[in-house]
Amino acid sequence: MEVIAGTIASPKGFYADGIHCGLKKTKVDLGWIVSEVPANAAAVFTTNQVQAAPIQVTKEKMASGQLQGVIVNAGNANACTGAQGYTDAQQMAIAAADHLGVAADQMAVASTGIIGRPLPMEKVTAGIAQLQKTGDPQAFQKAILTTDLTEKQIVIQTQIGGKTVTMAGCAKGSGMIHPNMATMLAFVTTDAAIATDLLQQLLRELTEVTFNQITVDGDTSTNDMVLVLANGLAGQPEIQKDTADYHAFKEMFQAVLTALAKEIAQDGEGATKLIEAKTTGAVSDEAARMISKTIVGSPLVKTALFGKDPNWGRILCAVGYSGQPIDPNALSISLAGILVFEAGKPVFFDEECMQEKLEGSAIEILVAMAQGTGQGMAWGCDLTYDYVKINALYHT
Amino acid sequence: MEVIAGTIASPKGFYADGIHCGLKKTKVDLGWIVSEVPANAAAVFTTNQVQAAPIQVTKEKMASGQLQGVIVNAGNANACTGAQGYTDAQQMAIAAADHLGVAADQMAVASTGIIGRPLPMEKVTAGIAQLQKTGDPQAFQKAILTTDLTEKQIVIQTQIGGKTVTMAGCAKGSGMIHPNMATMLAFVTTDAAIATDLLQQLLRELTEVTFNQITVDGDTSTNDMVLVLANGLAGQPEIQKDTADYHAFKEMFQAVLTALAKEIAQDGEGATKLIEAKTTGAVSDEAARMISKTIVGSPLVKTALFGKDPNWGRILCAVGYSGQPIDPNALSISLAGILVFEAGKPVFFDEECMQEKLEGSAIEILVAMAQGTGQGMAWGCDLTYDYVKINALYHT
Repeated sequence: MEVIAGTIASPKGFYADGIHCGLKKTKVDLGWIVSEVPANAAAVFTTNQVQAAPIQVTKEKMASGQLQGVIVNAGNANACTGAQGYTDAQQMAIAAADHLGVAADQMAVASTGIIGRPLPMEKVTAGIAQLQKTGDPQAFQKAILTTDLTEKQIVIQTQIGGKTVTMAGCAKGSGMIHPNMATMLAFVTTDAAIATDLLQQLLRELTEVTFNQITVDGDTSTNDMVLVLANGLAGQPEIQKDTADYHAFKEMFQAVLTALAKEIAQDGEGATKLIEAKTTGAVSDEAARMISKTIVGSPLVKTALFGKDPNWGRILCAVGYSGQPIDPNALSISLAGILVFEAGKPVFFDEECMQEKLEGSAIEILVAMAQGTGQGMAWGCDLTYDYVKINALYHT
Repeated sequence: MEVIAGTIASPKGFYADGIHCGLKKTKVDLGWIVSEVPANAAAVFTTNQVQAAPIQVTKEKMASGQLQGVIVNAGNANACTGAQGYTDAQQMAIAAADHLGVAADQMAVASTGIIGRPLPMEKVTAGIAQLQKTGDPQAFQKAILTTDLTEKQIVIQTQIGGKTVTMAGCAKGSGMIHPNMATMLAFVTTDAAIATDLLQQLLRELTEVTFNQITVDGDTSTNDMVLVLANGLAGQPEIQKDTADYHAFKEMFQAVLTALAKEIAQDGEGATKLIEAKTTGAVSDEAARMISKTIVGSPLVKTALFGKDPNWGRILCAVGYSGQPIDPNALSISLAGILVFEAGKPVFFDEECMQEKLEGSAIEILVAMAQGTGQGMAWGCDLTYDYVKINALYHT
């Protein structure tokens, strides 16, 4: 398995493009991914009960288990826009499908941006007409961003069934991100041959330990979606469950989703640091994941790390309100590689050495529960002045 | 029922004092409340599984159902301090009880401040020796504060059973405050005659709709405690359940707890605004309370209101992830008294008028669910640069 340079269009038979249609002032804001042939498709969606129109429309498109593309805009979420929003999302898919020359049920749709404003459809449809099948894949990755500061992408290649199989992913964050949700927008393409059911099953399983384990601010968007397209053009025999091929594919899939999840956390709104929490020795993997997630979600832990402050009491406090069984007298905590709390007692540590470690742009928190074998990770970011600035000024 | 000027020592037979013992640099940091006679006592405590030593010690003191006082320090939480911390909390109660001349099991103990540092007991015991029984009640209210900017107190008088009954409350916030917890430190004194069981039952019931409905940052302290002392010196016949006296007492009790809860939310770390959310027409009161709490807990709602931004989409989004049954097409939202979303659709509103309303220091959000008769309120505050500043710099 190897990380290679490339784009969302690197797997065989995939193309992508992005253009500016006027939803943002000057930046690229509309794009698509298309597959040469119908691809087996899997997706997970936000669990927010208020679901944006494109989420509703794309759920319907998943019925056949195949898609030939997805049309995406940034700058307007088409959420809380009533019946008109639903019609607009459908129309967006129809216009894109017509322009590509495929059936309308082959085109998914995703939107991100401000909630509650009608989508200016004349701009969107004019923009769709400009999209090229063999366009600029880098422009697609720009077209899905809102307050993101970085493009988030990864391409991995591996050998499966005697063939080179490629998988690419790209995503956008970076606010309204929280556990228990299908999360933000992420798109994954692969030329692997794999049945829709197995692809969907793997996506659900891996989302639990990747996208559902990141949090930026505890808010859950109305528009979150992870969409995976597998077009089979690598030409290897179709992947069967629990075979060596399956494990090779799963490893690649998990690596792509983990990389995107971490990139989203690291580029959380206003963030200066990635925070990675790993819990071991918990009563179960679920408990360990929840403890890790509670730590990276704590505003007090997040502000402390922004302040480069080794205030481990806040970590212990977060473990205590995680809702999971804990034994405060047995657990140990390491911060940035330095043991600070052991078997229920504070540990003397070198403050100067700690200060140096806390200057880093990625901070690791390890919690050893001493209760069992459960383990789990979560990723978040620090809470900074800029988070407040970005979100106080986003709309007006 | 009447709000009067006064202090925590206003009810008959109560006294309070506060002094500086050296836990904070220069500010008052140690105080006590004492009752002339043993008072019936009720309390609720943090649900964090990591519980500070004073919480453990005070829980033990509640066994007899009576207390004659509470000793409180700020500047050091005596939390995550192991067996030594437990011994220190016990010793603090013993020293205060000795100094007052009562049995050690009559003295509760509470602490607030930084986690994980041993309590400097020589300073604490020297300080206790300086406390006066008939001291300065205003100094007590200062002695319990940490990052609070305001003192939080209220005194109410009412007639019960032919006698004037007084109840006073004071509290400290203002970070690590979140629903589902017994909340921060709050002390309530009253000269009403009421049995311990009934007092405890009322405290639990009213905590649900007051302290458990406020949130500042979603973090839950290891040290939260609400303690109520009722010494019976008003001389009215003991309050019996479901009588007119009971309802008069309950009304006064709820008014005291609500006032303190709102003051804590308003003085949330870095806050510029109180946010009050009221949900009506929900499937149950519990659902309404949870929806209201989710709204005031949303970082995106909190930053929007700091930015005076009528971004109601974030309110609707929070309703959607509240975990409660909702019908997005039936619900309506008013922000600062202006209808912005009605029966599932955005409503045109006067932006200028809205801007003027959002300048206010208290912002009301109303959500009408159109599903039933459940209603509930919650209180929070905006999320500001100063919240980040306070919490990034608190420790170092």
